[in-house]
Amino acid sequence: MSDVIKLAHGDGGKFTNELIKNLFYRHFRNRKLEEGIDAATFSVNEGRMAFTTDSFVVKPIFFYGGDIGKLAVCGSINDLAVSGAKPLYLSASFIIEEGFPIDKLEAIVRSMGDTCTRAGVNIITGDTKVVEKGSVDGIFINTSGVGIIESNYKMKTIESGDQIIVTGTIGEHGTAIAIQRYDIKVKGNFKSDCNPLNGITENIQDLYPYIKIMKDPTRGGLVTILNELAELAGLGVRLIEEKIPVSREVKAMNEMLGLDPLYMACEGRMVLVVNKLYAEKVLNRIRSLEGCKDANIIGNFDQEASLKVYIENYLGGKRILNTLEGAMLPRIC
Amino acid sequence: MSDVIKLAHGDGGKFTNELIKNLFYRHFRNRKLEEGIDAATFSVNEGRMAFTTDSFVVKPIFFYGGDIGKLAVCGSINDLAVSGAKPLYLSASFIIEEGFPIDKLEAIVRSMGDTCTRAGVNIITGDTKVVEKGSVDGIFINTSGVGIIESNYKMKTIESGDQIIVTGTIGEHGTAIAIQRYDIKVKGNFKSDCNPLNGITENIQDLYPYIKIMKDPTRGGLVTILNELAELAGLGVRLIEEKIPVSREVKAMNEMLGLDPLYMACEGRMVLVVNKLYAEKVLNRIRSLEGCKDANIIGNFDQEASLKVYIENYLGGKRILNTLEGAMLPRIC
Repeated sequence: MSDVIKLAHGDGGKFTNELIKNLFYRHFRNRKLEEGIDAATFSVNEGRMAFTTDSFVVKPIFFYGGDIGKLAVCGSINDLAVSGAKPLYLSASFIIEEGFPIDKLEAIVRSMGDTCTRAGVNIITGDTKVVEKGSVDGIFINTSGVGIIESNYKMKTIESGDQIIVTGTIGEHGTAIAIQRYDIKVKGNFKSDCNPLNGITENIQDLYPYIKIMKDPTRGGLVTILNELAELAGLGVRLIEEKIPVSREVKAMNEMLGLDPLYMACEGRMVLVVNKLYAEKVLNRIRSLEGCKDANIIGNFDQEASLKVYIENYLGGKRILNTLEGAMLPRIC
Repeated sequence: MSDVIKLAHGDGGKFTNELIKNLFYRHFRNRKLEEGIDAATFSVNEGRMAFTTDSFVVKPIFFYGGDIGKLAVCGSINDLAVSGAKPLYLSASFIIEEGFPIDKLEAIVRSMGDTCTRAGVNIITGDTKVVEKGSVDGIFINTSGVGIIESNYKMKTIESGDQIIVTGTIGEHGTAIAIQRYDIKVKGNFKSDCNPLNGITENIQDLYPYIKIMKDPTRGGLVTILNELAELAGLGVRLIEEKIPVSREVKAMNEMLGLDPLYMACEGRMVLVVNKLYAEKVLNRIRSLEGCKDANIIGNFDQEASLKVYIENYLGGKRILNTLEGAMLPRIC
């Protein structure tokens, strides 16, 4: 096999097949994929299914705590998980620049395979296109996903008083990308939070009657999601600054860069809106789960605040958090 | 709204929402999509489903007989159709270059909506990413699709004597792209055959017991598909040159360009392998369907030919048709 991707790897012929067998089958490893037919097939029981898609253009493609492959697998898993679905199958579609190193491609594909194994999902169908040098920036990956809504999860109407839970420290993915994009030399444990969320959702299904909405705060971070929910609910949101879990490093780095962790993408956190009577119960369960020890109740919906999202600090100071007009950082996912 | 795509259209905030509502919802128009949640949901009955994905990087993005949007919708529909599935839902994911004209995007999106309406499928989930100028060549689109296998279709073992049917004239998509790529000024009715195939498959379901395999000859064209099937079957393939439907224009243009229609991609044709006793019956049914008047039996599987695909002309001359080592033309889909 050549050590870089050639146009012929994308022509659907001999080289494409070589790539599929030597790379994709080896790392994604499952019978449905290896059947190699135009569409993969699977059995379903009567019920409801969920279907989602995301394209990933993250830059750089390898970052602290992950890479475009892990991110692509987590992205579609997480969209399914926050919709109350059990992720079952993913597709993976690659657009690769001519000349892209095959060892890098293999690292990405291996990372996708590992993340799938950890999350209990399978990539069962795929596609590979190769474009001429200069027609794409390295590699872009699309994943789509299907899942089954086994649970009793339904989005419910948000009411004043409903509590907001976040499952861990925020802003870590966006900050990791920013550091590497701006090529900042820092010490400290900067790492994307990129992770599959179905490990959380599968362990809180009995609490779904108390959970009104689940969301993953990706592009635009926590504030963007909360502004969307405020608009949806016709209510305001009151956040309590010291309750929001942010690591010291992330806080300091964002101050230095003139950025705000509240707007930075997370790729492995979830925001939950919970009936206030059960918020502590839900929080305790979440804190008991892997990677969620920093989960916290960070605020509540509030009819007094009339559609605004605001944050209060311990001195009683208030600050309105509007949706930004432009991205803080493009290509974070 | 601005008249070109800006980075902010891809940041997941206000501009992204504007684009989604003003463009995607308007042309894709269906309730599931307009719910605007992370994953679309739908009900299923117990049974088997099919799942497929394809990314489209075709160049030019507008071509005689279609555009990247129509092609993207047909591509996933056709992968489902040839797998014996009724296509139900598609996802659409866009990677767009900063500065891309919004009127062109709208033309593409409208074309996707129209093709969906014609084929009876819905785009129910999507994603939009925008990358900096120079990071992608205009626009790339991924579609994934899910369908339900309602029929009794199963791939069956190919035997010597099985007949090969093609549903219409071949090589038209690849030839249309070649003409425009090389900017050849020609008169004549050159048009991609790009079309949804589910109109055919839904009308031949009662004949599935006699149909062993269905395939769409996209990248690498008819010869590539037949070489794959020959390998799968452990048999050779004998084609009869004068039986293969090729339009006069396509034949002449390929001669001029030094290309061969047998290797040129089709995006709206199907190859069927049929039990020889029922080949005429299947052919007659197919010929009665819209757009299939040129369908023909073009050859058969043949144990004498030992894994080779060969073509015979009316003088008895034989020529081996090997899989090409490299693509005749990159980015045809």
